[in-house]
Amino acid sequence: MRDVAQAAGVSVATVSHVVNNKPGARIGADARQRVRDAVERLGYRPNALATTLSRGSSRFIGLVSDAIASTPFAGQIIHGAQDEAWKRGYVLLVADTDGNRAAEDDAIAIMLEYQVQGVLYSSWFHHEVQVPAALEQTTTVLVDCYSSGSGLPSVVPDERQGGMAATRRLLEAGHRRVAFINTTTESPAQEGRLAGYREALVSAGIGFDESLVFPAAPDQGGGYDAAGQIVDSGATAVFCHNDRVAMGLYDGLREAGLSIPGDIAVMGFDNQDVISAHLRPPLSTVALPHYDLGAAAVRVLLGVTDMAEARPLLVSCPVIERESV
Amino acid sequence: MRDVAQAAGVSVATVSHVVNNKPGARIGADARQRVRDAVERLGYRPNALATTLSRGSSRFIGLVSDAIASTPFAGQIIHGAQDEAWKRGYVLLVADTDGNRAAEDDAIAIMLEYQVQGVLYSSWFHHEVQVPAALEQTTTVLVDCYSSGSGLPSVVPDERQGGMAATRRLLEAGHRRVAFINTTTESPAQEGRLAGYREALVSAGIGFDESLVFPAAPDQGGGYDAAGQIVDSGATAVFCHNDRVAMGLYDGLREAGLSIPGDIAVMGFDNQDVISAHLRPPLSTVALPHYDLGAAAVRVLLGVTDMAEARPLLVSCPVIERESV
Repeated sequence: MRDVAQAAGVSVATVSHVVNNKPGARIGADARQRVRDAVERLGYRPNALATTLSRGSSRFIGLVSDAIASTPFAGQIIHGAQDEAWKRGYVLLVADTDGNRAAEDDAIAIMLEYQVQGVLYSSWFHHEVQVPAALEQTTTVLVDCYSSGSGLPSVVPDERQGGMAATRRLLEAGHRRVAFINTTTESPAQEGRLAGYREALVSAGIGFDESLVFPAAPDQGGGYDAAGQIVDSGATAVFCHNDRVAMGLYDGLREAGLSIPGDIAVMGFDNQDVISAHLRPPLSTVALPHYDLGAAAVRVLLGVTDMAEARPLLVSCPVIERESV
Repeated sequence: MRDVAQAAGVSVATVSHVVNNKPGARIGADARQRVRDAVERLGYRPNALATTLSRGSSRFIGLVSDAIASTPFAGQIIHGAQDEAWKRGYVLLVADTDGNRAAEDDAIAIMLEYQVQGVLYSSWFHHEVQVPAALEQTTTVLVDCYSSGSGLPSVVPDERQGGMAATRRLLEAGHRRVAFINTTTESPAQEGRLAGYREALVSAGIGFDESLVFPAAPDQGGGYDAAGQIVDSGATAVFCHNDRVAMGLYDGLREAGLSIPGDIAVMGFDNQDVISAHLRPPLSTVALPHYDLGAAAVRVLLGVTDMAEARPLLVSCPVIERESV
């Protein structure tokens, strides 16, 4: 900054005023231009840390994630949060905790030291979490998770709407006997996707038949093992709790000599790209809106989106058309 | 800090000296203890930004990644880098650029403003990159990529050793006619894995037979399409360029009525967990050491690992045993 001042023939204070756009400083247009030229010529870069200190508030937002290293889902939350943060002049401090409480405490302590505006506490799958006590010291938004009674704002996928969209897609293709392989794990996804499935059937005048709902482990093995029951049920279409279940079901149906979608249509959920886009045939599914969850959470944190109600912000899950329906 | 000083009955300067462990300050053990007690009682948190400024160097390391949102591979690099950085008192500033040059320039500008110690420029797959000019302004380490002639240190997977390990695993299982489905994309992986495959065969006294190398697109479609040639070749084992190729090959071999590993053994590469751990049977493969790449790159950046030689640092790729061999 001293070099810039010397080159422009002004004081260091003048440089600081021009560079930081401080209001109220009376600086002539000529001096202002000389400072800008010198900044350009010398490649001067204002020190963001010093600016933060003089402002008294930082431009950091913390993002704590439990699974950056194990799923691209977490990465999409980060990407959405980063784009929204950058757009609004903020930078993300990202920490992967691998679900480990000690790593989580370390991460939050670091973020507080760097005076973050707040912390996005995110999970790679929608479930209830115990929020670390240290987060009481800052503004916190929960992403793809929630904490009953904590009063913390929460941004989550609309599981019910997603289940409804998946089922409607099968109904639109002409199916009337639609099975649902649901997870055995209690979760908002289990409950919400089932509610959506039921609602789509009822509002189409078909009605809900509990004997067409098959509980299964939410992975390839669960889908594979459910194939026999699906065949026996006489269903012509199956909505799977997730893409991994659909991948296993594909193997099971193939062994039973059935073709997809000719003999039986299959819908997934999650849009786990490396699976869904590359099965034979490619899997039609419903996307979890991770990018949008991250972006929406930044808007809530910064007060751009108003969360006056004590209810989670639901983000819509779109249908992804491929070739299995 | 003023509250701490008042509670401890000392000056603000004394608090600062004690908290920042400044050498040369003559402070009695008693006053020192009173400050520590007050810090504890009041939950005082030293301001990391102010400490950084007074030190004149930051504790940030930048990490630029092209694909956090599309593959957990990038996440594993971040996780390894973060653990190593934290261990050494540094914090990562992570940016996902989605391979977009403008986002990359933004990310690097932000990192320079925050006076990072240096930048890890990482890719989710091993290839040659054009390093952004802005990185000339800071210490840079390339992770899972390289730039010929740039003189920049580079930390990459040992593709040759990985190809050799995969092939040796098949030879150890008694196979003598081992095919290799290699990618059609020119890359260090294409060249290195082939060299390792060849070396393992030659050193086992079997010799290299070019007619057993099948070029294919490096995805499920490529593996599926190669199945016929594999069957015709009379190979009893196949080393696949990656797990996605193996996934497609599984479908093709199944359609040809062959069982894995009974009729034909299959090795993958990458250890893309969501695929390899969940195929039927689970796929034996070679892991890309993303976590280790991230950790090693931090050590290179901080000068803990010496990179005097103008050669990339090769990180070993371990065999992951499952049930397809």
